[in-house]
Amino acid sequence: MTIPVNPNPEEGDGTLSKKAQKKLAKDAQKAAKKTEKAAAQVQPEKDEVDVSVGRYGNLPMIRSSRGGEFERLYGRSFAHVKELDAKLANKDVWVRVRLQTSRAKGKQCFVVLREQSSTIQGILAVSDKISKQFVKFASTINKESILDVFASLTTVPKKIESCTQSDVELNIKELWVVSSAKPQLPLLVEDAARPVNEAEQEGLNIKVNQDTRLDNRILDLRTPANQAIYRLEAGVCRLFRDILTKNGFVEIHTPKMISAASEGGANVFTVSYFKGSAYLAQSPQLYKQMAIAADFDKVFTVGAVFRAEDSNTHRHLTEFVGLDLEMAFKYHYHEVMKVIGDLFTEIFKGLRDRFRDEIEAVKQQYGMEPFKFLDPPLILNFPDGVAMLREAGVQIGDEDDLSTPDEKLLGRLVKAKYDTDFYILDKYPLAVRPFYTMPSPDNPKYSNSYDMFMRGEEILSGAQRIHDADLLTERAKHHGVDLEKIKAYVDAFRYGCPPHAGGGIGLERVVMLYLGLDNIRKTSMFPRDPKRLTP
Amino acid sequence: MTIPVNPNPEEGDGTLSKKAQKKLAKDAQKAAKKTEKAAAQVQPEKDEVDVSVGRYGNLPMIRSSRGGEFERLYGRSFAHVKELDAKLANKDVWVRVRLQTSRAKGKQCFVVLREQSSTIQGILAVSDKISKQFVKFASTINKESILDVFASLTTVPKKIESCTQSDVELNIKELWVVSSAKPQLPLLVEDAARPVNEAEQEGLNIKVNQDTRLDNRILDLRTPANQAIYRLEAGVCRLFRDILTKNGFVEIHTPKMISAASEGGANVFTVSYFKGSAYLAQSPQLYKQMAIAADFDKVFTVGAVFRAEDSNTHRHLTEFVGLDLEMAFKYHYHEVMKVIGDLFTEIFKGLRDRFRDEIEAVKQQYGMEPFKFLDPPLILNFPDGVAMLREAGVQIGDEDDLSTPDEKLLGRLVKAKYDTDFYILDKYPLAVRPFYTMPSPDNPKYSNSYDMFMRGEEILSGAQRIHDADLLTERAKHHGVDLEKIKAYVDAFRYGCPPHAGGGIGLERVVMLYLGLDNIRKTSMFPRDPKRLTP
Repeated sequence: MTIPVNPNPEEGDGTLSKKAQKKLAKDAQKAAKKTEKAAAQVQPEKDEVDVSVGRYGNLPMIRSSRGGEFERLYGRSFAHVKELDAKLANKDVWVRVRLQTSRAKGKQCFVVLREQSSTIQGILAVSDKISKQFVKFASTINKESILDVFASLTTVPKKIESCTQSDVELNIKELWVVSSAKPQLPLLVEDAARPVNEAEQEGLNIKVNQDTRLDNRILDLRTPANQAIYRLEAGVCRLFRDILTKNGFVEIHTPKMISAASEGGANVFTVSYFKGSAYLAQSPQLYKQMAIAADFDKVFTVGAVFRAEDSNTHRHLTEFVGLDLEMAFKYHYHEVMKVIGDLFTEIFKGLRDRFRDEIEAVKQQYGMEPFKFLDPPLILNFPDGVAMLREAGVQIGDEDDLSTPDEKLLGRLVKAKYDTDFYILDKYPLAVRPFYTMPSPDNPKYSNSYDMFMRGEEILSGAQRIHDADLLTERAKHHGVDLEKIKAYVDAFRYGCPPHAGGGIGLERVVMLYLGLDNIRKTSMFPRDPKRLTP
Repeated sequence: MTIPVNPNPEEGDGTLSKKAQKKLAKDAQKAAKKTEKAAAQVQPEKDEVDVSVGRYGNLPMIRSSRGGEFERLYGRSFAHVKELDAKLANKDVWVRVRLQTSRAKGKQCFVVLREQSSTIQGILAVSDKISKQFVKFASTINKESILDVFASLTTVPKKIESCTQSDVELNIKELWVVSSAKPQLPLLVEDAARPVNEAEQEGLNIKVNQDTRLDNRILDLRTPANQAIYRLEAGVCRLFRDILTKNGFVEIHTPKMISAASEGGANVFTVSYFKGSAYLAQSPQLYKQMAIAADFDKVFTVGAVFRAEDSNTHRHLTEFVGLDLEMAFKYHYHEVMKVIGDLFTEIFKGLRDRFRDEIEAVKQQYGMEPFKFLDPPLILNFPDGVAMLREAGVQIGDEDDLSTPDEKLLGRLVKAKYDTDFYILDKYPLAVRPFYTMPSPDNPKYSNSYDMFMRGEEILSGAQRIHDADLLTERAKHHGVDLEKIKAYVDAFRYGCPPHAGGGIGLERVVMLYLGLDNIRKTSMFPRDPKRLTP
């Protein structure tokens, strides 16, 4: 017999006014005291026989003891909740799980047990083998505690919609608390996992706001959507590296502490370095280029990038993960642009094919349109993009950069016309690019540079770099760059350097936009912005 | 006909006294002027017919022009020098190469052309198709310049020992300078690549010292040994990630800027963070552990780690690449220690099998004993290690940490007894480990912690971490740690946390010791130490 476990609306908290928060905290404290009291009572009284003795309780702290009571546990094998289905019916299994919810009802206790993104219902009912005390003990365990559960897996007549394992449940025979959670939690994983539309539709106003989530990131990360987001993010990195390695790229590591600001003095963090100062690299570009000048031919690097920009927007972080690549080419930078475009196509295919479950989990909570892309990717020339914007009523000069709203609008126009969420905008005006960008030889107003966009937001900026020290000096002068400060950079091109191009990708942006999320803090596990340095 | 190209002893420079350096610089300047003069003369005189016109010269800067003279080049396909062998004899090929050396001899010019680690001899002789001017031009090109060369590949009667492609040479038909190097170079790649013993044996005293190398890293990195070292280093990272991913680990990214020093206040770099301060993370440990508390089960991360330690030794850097992992276990931390031990075995096998050429290239320059390991790895208990040291005459207390000389001696003793360069030392004394290390439940003097060693130097430190907030608080108090500063860390264990263990690996150390190199600056592409922040 199964009783579906409904989410308990009273449990929602974590946001709203300070007053409300205080009340909730007080209530939680009361509840905690009650729980503690109840827990104290579950010790079997001396004159009462507990038929379940030795089948439940708090396990001593796991300290890897040799000999003693743990020795017998070492051979024990555990099943994963996600593998539990009707095929294993009537088998006995051990699982290590979290207690997501528990609900006592007369002589029964229903629990929802969670392992990562998978949930299963468990049931404990007083019988000749299950004591009252055992059931009582189970009902007083704090949510989010970690348990070792031994149970018989049984099929259920009616699907349990509230669990991912909907065809089976666990008839609990043993239950041990491995690690107990505090009785009050600053947020409930159930609430943090609630689909964005559901709470609004049902008028429950159960919503855990972004700061509460980030302040209690350990709990927030336990939601199925977050479990999926960071697995997919790992997937993007993996695809990036695997595809490039297959294409002959070599991974390099570039220093984060540098002696001079790599891209001008603005927006750079300063570090006390023994008796002097250092700066945190705003990009690995100089080092990627040096690796090219040092004959590595094609290189990539994945690592932290720092921007001391006081931008408090949905898409800026002060520290993010850069996926950077640089490649020597023979005669035309399009050789490189093609490699990068194809790289994205391969990544999108890889995500689509290998991360179906993860994409679905994120969709369940946040909803989004599936990400569309063309193979090969669409390449637009900058003037053609400008023409599309003008046609849509935007006033923009030939050599103006695109504003963020322009980029978003152009993204929508491109989507409407070409049905793709990814495209490349090539040949930016020279005036809006950094001094080291190779000017176009065909039209002095433009440059050999490109940006790439996902859902109308820039996720890569790249270009052919100037590989000639004299031209680089000339362009730096034109931009008013202090030649003394970039001497080492310029000198790197004095010992023979092949023509080369590359680009830098913001990992968190790629994941945010691929999944159609609204805030980059959702795709940085421990985000850093001007106002947040913790946890 | 082939004439082997011998290294020219006069070319060595880059070290020795300041006086000698000045003289060399002056000589180089003279040589440069001469070269320039010679170059000026190669323009064909008006009254002299140059039969090679259009077959040599300086290519205009490659700026990715559409139309014009470059259009015809776009379809050109290039061969790689490493692929050029007798099988391709009598074929015409294009190669893009560096000029390593050139030597004019009468009406001929012999060159050594290099592409990454591969070299081939080229020959240009005056004939009805090759003009005097062409030969003259070739002989005046600066070393390390990048060239496009069109040539017929021919076999040679006698092996060319000085080139990697010893069975063939290039009969040059066209030669274009793509990017010219300065006439004076601060070091010659040939000298930087010289086997360490050769210079000594021959009494030539041609040695490029470490600082000259690092100051001119772009040139130094072009040696075959360096090309190999950083490819092998990329291989270590790749193996680390691939093996762990296969075992269900998820890659995460942890912040480098943190609000409080993660492992005590000493040796931490301070960053100006808007109106406040931040610190550079000394390890990702807290964040790895938080990911475990957040149900990611098994995680790894590869990234920059910072130590503000004023140690000027062969094995300390202020910034290095950490390969970190953390893993929840069921009942005993040896579950994790085994995973890490097997990880190393797999990495060593992968390097041995997939990086044979790279290992050979490093051996050619530096020489070293091949790296030996056992499968499964040797695990020694700390007290057994201490016993071995005592037997060898070392005075050491039961609860003392091993000094660096002790570690090296123990490494030699282990090698002699077990014939392995890798082993695990388990169960360190509790007193010498950080406060968050789980004490051994079986003997209060010891802890559930381990170090791993390669050639007698520590390359991994790890342990079971305390996953219980109360015990963690107790141990922190015992160590005199300020509880207020580690509140966030301790609180992370209040919402249920599985027992877990892990470790951190220093990438550069692993590569240094695997290859038997004597300095960690040889395995960091752009090393950082208390005295070096550049390039």
